[in-house]
Formats: sequence, C-alpha cells, structure tokens
Amino acid sequence: MVQEVTCSAPVNIAVIKYWGKRDSNLILPTNSSLSVTLDQSDLRSTTTARLLDVEGPDRLWLNGVEQIINANSRLGKCLEGMRQLKTKAEQTKSLELGNDHLPESRRAILIASENNFPTAAGLASSASGFAALAFTLSKLYALSLSPSELSMIARQGSGSACRSIFGGFVAWEMGSIDDGSDSMAVEVANQAHWADLEALICVVSDLKKGTSSTSGMEATVNTSELLQHRIKNVVPERMKGMKAAIIAKDFDKFAELTMADSNQFHAVCLDTTPPIFYLNDVSRAIIAVVEELNRSSRAEGDGYVAAYTFDAGPNAVIYAPKRNMRKVINLILRYFPLPDSTPFQDPKHAFESKELAGTLPLPVNFNQAVSPLWPNGHVSRVIHTQVGDGPQVLSQELGTGLLDSKGFVKSLQLNGHQTK
Amino acid sequence: MVQEVTCSAPVNIAVIKYWGKRDSNLILPTNSSLSVTLDQSDLRSTTTARLLDVEGPDRLWLNGVEQIINANSRLGKCLEGMRQLKTKAEQTKSLELGNDHLPESRRAILIASENNFPTAAGLASSASGFAALAFTLSKLYALSLSPSELSMIARQGSGSACRSIFGGFVAWEMGSIDDGSDSMAVEVANQAHWADLEALICVVSDLKKGTSSTSGMEATVNTSELLQHRIKNVVPERMKGMKAAIIAKDFDKFAELTMADSNQFHAVCLDTTPPIFYLNDVSRAIIAVVEELNRSSRAEGDGYVAAYTFDAGPNAVIYAPKRNMRKVINLILRYFPLPDSTPFQDPKHAFESKELAGTLPLPVNFNQAVSPLWPNGHVSRVIHTQVGDGPQVLSQELGTGLLDSKGFVKSLQLNGHQTK
Repeated sequence: MVQEVTCSAPVNIAVIKYWGKRDSNLILPTNSSLSVTLDQSDLRSTTTARLLDVEGPDRLWLNGVEQIINANSRLGKCLEGMRQLKTKAEQTKSLELGNDHLPESRRAILIASENNFPTAAGLASSASGFAALAFTLSKLYALSLSPSELSMIARQGSGSACRSIFGGFVAWEMGSIDDGSDSMAVEVANQAHWADLEALICVVSDLKKGTSSTSGMEATVNTSELLQHRIKNVVPERMKGMKAAIIAKDFDKFAELTMADSNQFHAVCLDTTPPIFYLNDVSRAIIAVVEELNRSSRAEGDGYVAAYTFDAGPNAVIYAPKRNMRKVINLILRYFPLPDSTPFQDPKHAFESKELAGTLPLPVNFNQAVSPLWPNGHVSRVIHTQVGDGPQVLSQELGTGLLDSKGFVKSLQLNGHQTK
Repeated sequence: MVQEVTCSAPVNIAVIKYWGKRDSNLILPTNSSLSVTLDQSDLRSTTTARLLDVEGPDRLWLNGVEQIINANSRLGKCLEGMRQLKTKAEQTKSLELGNDHLPESRRAILIASENNFPTAAGLASSASGFAALAFTLSKLYALSLSPSELSMIARQGSGSACRSIFGGFVAWEMGSIDDGSDSMAVEVANQAHWADLEALICVVSDLKKGTSSTSGMEATVNTSELLQHRIKNVVPERMKGMKAAIIAKDFDKFAELTMADSNQFHAVCLDTTPPIFYLNDVSRAIIAVVEELNRSSRAEGDGYVAAYTFDAGPNAVIYAPKRNMRKVINLILRYFPLPDSTPFQDPKHAFESKELAGTLPLPVNFNQAVSPLWPNGHVSRVIHTQVGDGPQVLSQELGTGLLDSKGFVKSLQLNGHQTK
C-alpha cells in the first residue's frame, strides 16, 4: 500500500557556535554547541515522503528541482541511515509478520521538500531541511526513535540539523566516541520555558559569495591556532554558563555569552589561512548600534536590551525579550532603512498603530554617531519571530502534501518562495 | 650657549604585531614584536630641539601647533626620562666640570616636530615622532647611549616608537623585569641585509573613526580569552620563525608569517568585548586580491608574490620583493583605482614608460571574480617605499631646523603636510 507523510521542521540559530569537525564523514564536531529553535510559522522546511509499493530508485525534489541522490552524498547517507533502521526494525519483527510481502525498507521513496523562505536570503536551510527529512522518514517508517536518536541521523546530513529536531533551547553534545554514537542533540529547555524570547532576523545584502561552511570549517581546523584554544578552554565553560542562563531566564548572561561567542567564531575565521570573512561593513554597523543600545541601557543601571549573533554570512539575528523588540526594530530600521518596495509590516504588533518604526526617538544617552545612517536597502528584509517548537506532522493523507497523485512535485505554493 | 640639533626618524610597520600592555605606565608589552623600518625619504618625522641658556618651561610644537606638556603625559615622561639621564651624566662629571655654570639638564628646551605625511592619511605617526624626539634629545645632550638604551626612552612615549630607533629589521624584546629595564628594541638585520624588500602603503578611506590603539589594547587584554593563547603559545614561535626568515631572506616564510600574524591580531580585536574592527570592506577586498595573487603564483609552482599587513586601521601595507612590485601595484590599481585628481606617479619606475599601472593583464590563472572592481578613490593614495635606515642627524647649526631665530616654530614646509 502506498503511504505518505508530510512534516515540517524549524530553523535554529546557535548562540554557542559549531565550527569545526573532528570527523567530516560522520559529521562529528570539535566542540559542543547550543541553539534556539525559531518559530515554524515564520521559517520552516516542509517535506513530503511517499512510500511506493514497488522497488526502484528513490527520487527527491528540493524547492521544485530534482536532485541526484548519490550514495556518498549527505542526502544519500541520511536516506540510507533511515532505511537501515527500518531494515533492523523489520528483522526484529520478521517472525510475526512473515516474509511473504515486499518489506517497506525495500520500496522506493519519493520525496519533495521546500523552504518557506527564499534561499537567496542567505538563511541556512540545510538544518531545517535535513531535520525535516529525517523526521518525515521516521514517521513514514513508523520507527520508534527518541528525538536524540533521530538527531544523530539528521546530524549526518548537516551537523546543525541535529539541533532542529527539538523545539526551544537545544544543546548538541559533541560526544567523545569515535563512531559518533554519543554525538547528539538534547533539549536544554522547551519552547514554553522562555516563551518571552524573540528574535529579529536582519537580512543583509552582500556583494560577494562567502566561503561555504563546510570548506571554511575545514580550513579553520587545519590552520587556526586560536581554534584549538577555543575548543579546549573556552567552549566548555560557555556551554555551562549558557545552560545556566537559559534555565534561569537570565537575559543579561544570555546576551553576554551570545555576543562573545558570535565574535569569537568570526575571530577564528579571521585567524584562518587564508582568512575567512563573513561579516561585512553593514554587519559591523549592526554590531555597533546594538552594542551602543546595550551600553546606553547599562549606563542607566538597566540590563542588556538585545544580543546579536551572526552565522556564516552577513545576516544578523538579534535576540531580545518581547518588551525590548520595539526598541530594537526602531533602532535597526532607523540606521538601516528597508528598500522602499518592501516596507516593514509589523506582523507581531511591536508598535502602536500610529507609530512608524524607525522614526521613534532613541534613548537620550545613545551616541548617534556610532554609525552613519545607511541608504535604503542595505538591510533588505527583517523577520520578527520567536522561540518555536520542534518538527510537526502536518498530514498523513495521500496527495495532501507536496507530491501530486502521479508522484510528481506540485508547483510551489508556500509563502515567500520564488522558483529560480 | 644656545645649542640646537635637528634629526629625523623613520616609520616602522610590524610584521609580528604588538597588541597588549602588561604595564601601561611603563608601556611594557604582553608579547615581543618585530617590524620593518621604512625609508625616511618617503615617510619621516623631523624634530628640532634647542637648548636655551636659561631655566624655564619647555615648549613644544607638533605640526605647527603648540602642545601642553603635562608631567604625566607620555610626552612629559619622555622629556623627563632624557633629562634624568643628562642629570646623571652631569653628576658623574661634576668633579672635573665644576658647578659654577647652569647645568644643561636645568635649561629650558624648545622643540618643534613635524611629519612629512598627512596625519589625516591615518598612518601612525607616534612611532616616528617619539623616536625622533628621543634621538634628537640624546644628541642635544650629547649622551652616550646605545640604541637599545635609547629605545627604552622612546618606548615610554609610544610602545612601537622603540622599534623606530633602528633601521632595517627590528625586534622589540618584551623582557620580563618589572621595571622595564629589559624591554627594548634590538636589530635583527640592518637595512642593507635585505635591501630588495619593498613596501606599498595603500591608504584606505574609512567612514568611521576607529578605536584608539591604547584603549583597544586595554579592552583586548581585559576581555579576550584568545589573546592569552596568542601571547603564550603563538607569538614566541612566530618571533623565532620570523627572525630566521629575515636572516635567510626567505620571502615565502616571511610572507606566510606576516599575513597570519596580521590576521591573528585582527582576530583578537574581534574577540574583544565589545568587538573592535579595524578592517573594512576595502581592507577585506585587498586581502582577497593579494591572497588570490599568491594562490595563482603558488599554483604554478612559484612562491608568494606579496604579503599584506594591517595595523589599527583600514590601511594596507603590502611587502614584496622589488621584482614583484610591478605586479602588486598593477593589481591594486586595477581593483582600487585612485581618485582622478591624484593619479599614480610611479616614483620608483616600477613600470616601463609606456605601461599604465592598473591596466596590465593579470596572471592567466588569476580568478578575477575574487573581488568586484571598486569605484575610484576607495584607496585614496599609494606610497611605494622600501626598507630604510634608523634616525639621522640632519643639522646641528642654530636656525637651520624647524625653529626660527626667536624660538618660534617656522611655517611648515615639508612635503605633503597640510596645516589644519
């Protein structure tokens, strides 16, 4: 019988950064990392997997374009990893089921996956994409796996995908065993624990294409002397501090560690030969205005207002408690006005109806000279989102997902996606 | 009797960077450093010191503007340091000279100092300025000091000034004694040893004023965990490697270490809280084109062509053997054309008379997409210079220096300087 499942999985943004593999085949990291899962109503990957009732090659469409599945590719390994788990499960049950029909593990699978955010925005889609793939296949095969077990399969597709298997606040514990069997994601706190935490993604335009994170990590591991110190001496303490900050919902400590760790990640990139730069002048200016916002608040005896973090690209993600987001968005839109063609929509009503984001006064002791006001469009888009939950089953009914009745990918229809 | 001396001192550009003080009063560094002294015919500070025959306050003009001399300022400490050495010398000789006349150490000094390069160009002038001051006063007082002893006085004006007391290749050995008596500059090799080495200074425009190096160093020492690793584990090895490279005139090794150390210095700046950025998008693009020039050369089995280094600002200094400079200048002027108003003059005849710098073909395997071509003026000036010698006495005749017969500063007349 043909079966089908459609699921979605979230994006996660690390606050203690993953940078460096100790095994690039199994994707085992040189240090543990910790991330916040973002709300799938804003950013998600959706995947439909259909199990045919015949043998044959698997096929996969990503954002409407068919991909070649090589056995040695990350995609191939992820598929094979799930299929092996299914085979194992079938062998355990073989006595009761009998062997007279075609086992599910031998049937062909059709997969369609898409992101509801444009790839061109430079937001990492491999984490949500591989998490959605692993999660959907586990449902299709009806495997009884704990989320941490599932995270180990997702990890082999893209390291940071293992963290997208959970909602809320997620640690990827690096582990120490050579075969990777203790390198998995675990939940630090669920989504509801600190629901007040929000995030503003600032999409920054860049002239040049950056170094891919796979080749960048490899270069840093091979050439940076500072990375070794970070791995051994800095990250272990920061992981403890960050977990404690999250458990206590201590935003000051969370902000301090988040910004320091983002900066240290970019520092080890710069210490690489040849050096790797992901931050550009706009990224630097975003750092400058957020630092000044925090300085002006702390000078008044108040706490941190917001915390920036940057992944392997120029885009900023700014975390802040809900009550501070009006201040943060106003600041960003003042210094980095959006293109005229795509004004700010304020989906979460951070502003009163008569207030115009970007025009409200700054704090009185804010040093406005900390950055020039940039021309429109250097930040091309902002996405106001929040902490979210883990992967979800959307549908188990045939033909209700991304594949049509004949097994072809349907035309793309989800928000924001542009076929190229 | 009124006496006068006029001397000049050179700029130096570090290839193993000084960043961090272990004693900010005595200016003792957290690590040793190593620099190349540049030719004074291109970049120099000139200082006239006149010893009056009366007691009274000292006076000093810098680039034509009188400066207040506070006893606790670096300027005051430098002056006081030289005066104490003179007093000590006089005490030793007191038996033979008698005490019937006013000792030189008690007489007032007039000082005028200027740089032949515009301060606005963002080139550090404190190193050459304090070296010129210390050297000139040592000549005025006729003190018998070794250059290393003199470097300890200059060091207390500005740390890197101690390296401008020597020509050629200079190490500032950090020392370990608390009073700083073993923290001094020494010659690694003189100017003639590797006269073939040239430098191209690329003056990069910047929108924002950077963090001063004094406050930047302090912040890095206080907050960067990576700096401690650099100090203890990285710099000692690099100092050895760099000295060996210079002794052997091994440009490949020199280039590798110079670029790695510049990048690591900027990495520890980024690892500071709040982060310090000196490189901007133009600096990053200069790094990208020089890295690509080296890659394309090494891919053909040849060596490094050039080595960039950046101090506490966006300007690049590119070292290269003389034979490579045509290639380097052509590359820089192609990607970063000068303002139309100040075309390249080619003072060292790096190009044939019919060749137009910036228009010659790039190496065939050079990936031209490594950077966009920038609009004119992002690099506002290039200075083609070479390894130079140490401080020089220019004149000892009254009135021939920067002071007129009445003891006022003469109007500024040296190349390139603009009174503001």
